[in-house]
Amino acid sequence: MPTYVLNNAGFHFRCWGDHLKKPFEDVNPFKKVPAVQDGDFRILESCAALRYIASKYDSAGTWYPADLKVRCKVDEYLDWQHLNTRTHGLGYFVNMTLVPMKTGTEPDMTVVQKHEEELGRVEDLFASYFLNDKPFIAGDTVTIADLQAACEFEQPQAAGYKLKTATKEYLERVRKAVGHGLYDELHAAPKDLVKAMKK
Amino acid sequence: MPTYVLNNAGFHFRCWGDHLKKPFEDVNPFKKVPAVQDGDFRILESCAALRYIASKYDSAGTWYPADLKVRCKVDEYLDWQHLNTRTHGLGYFVNMTLVPMKTGTEPDMTVVQKHEEELGRVEDLFASYFLNDKPFIAGDTVTIADLQAACEFEQPQAAGYKLKTATKEYLERVRKAVGHGLYDELHAAPKDLVKAMKK
Repeated sequence: MPTYVLNNAGFHFRCWGDHLKKPFEDVNPFKKVPAVQDGDFRILESCAALRYIASKYDSAGTWYPADLKVRCKVDEYLDWQHLNTRTHGLGYFVNMTLVPMKTGTEPDMTVVQKHEEELGRVEDLFASYFLNDKPFIAGDTVTIADLQAACEFEQPQAAGYKLKTATKEYLERVRKAVGHGLYDELHAAPKDLVKAMKK
Repeated sequence: MPTYVLNNAGFHFRCWGDHLKKPFEDVNPFKKVPAVQDGDFRILESCAALRYIASKYDSAGTWYPADLKVRCKVDEYLDWQHLNTRTHGLGYFVNMTLVPMKTGTEPDMTVVQKHEEELGRVEDLFASYFLNDKPFIAGDTVTIADLQAACEFEQPQAAGYKLKTATKEYLERVRKAVGHGLYDELHAAPKDLVKAMKK
């Protein structure tokens, strides 16, 4: 399981479902990952955490640009993804991997196919509206919006979803911008999980 | 219908479903409301629009405070609400009003009751985590997070959902902070719709 998502809050997952009960419920009453800890300050939503970390630690303002219009385009993606890339990317991944592991049954392909169809629609809107021929969501440089998008596309891909060429090329640009080593480390957990399932 | 949500982008709804087709599809390819226009700059997500408008026009920084920790708590609610207050508040309202109006049938109470149950859970988390004995989400003063929360609680209430006392008291604090006249004007649309249905 992706222990890295909560290393920061001092909690290690042992198996799926740990996030739904105590002691994690005391860390995050929403029973969701991630939970981020900065000193005595805790943040329970990933996008809020990305904004906070970038604002506090990236003095150059690269990851969350201060220019209002550029920042707004970063925010627009981070708001949109909740019911789009996140819902269907995570939905595909969870229903292909974690749910069958937990229940000991085959994936419910009716549910998986619904997420697969929606993810196709999401990829098209992502390419046409958010990228719109730019290398990254906010323009020529990578931002926290791209970090979020990469997570959401890498998870279903790890579980067998066939990303469109434009999305794969975009992920390769994000990987290059972040650095291949760090990017691969960050995205190893879903791939490792799928490998473990196949053994 | 709530024409005010798009007055700003020069588009007036005539009936439910207008947002799903042209010419609105050209305004917002996501086929969702609102769409906000500031000069030649268009914003298609409500939370991104609230952040942008507050950052650009509220020089006092009241609505979206610059202090990183306070701002993070505003962002945390704005991120959380998508799959919680928004999903179930809007879900209750739409399934009690717009869907029956469109289809000419009675509300699907199985769907409505699911949103009703979830909205009860949302109200409890909202009170215990986001308010946690404070008057507003970010502390002692009203912010854009409270504007968003008020919309999401007022809609199901207009359609018959019985809010808990703590939520009603919170909405009254937001109403007082915004100003009774403006608040009532902003929240008139869902109430007017329900009145029109009863005629």
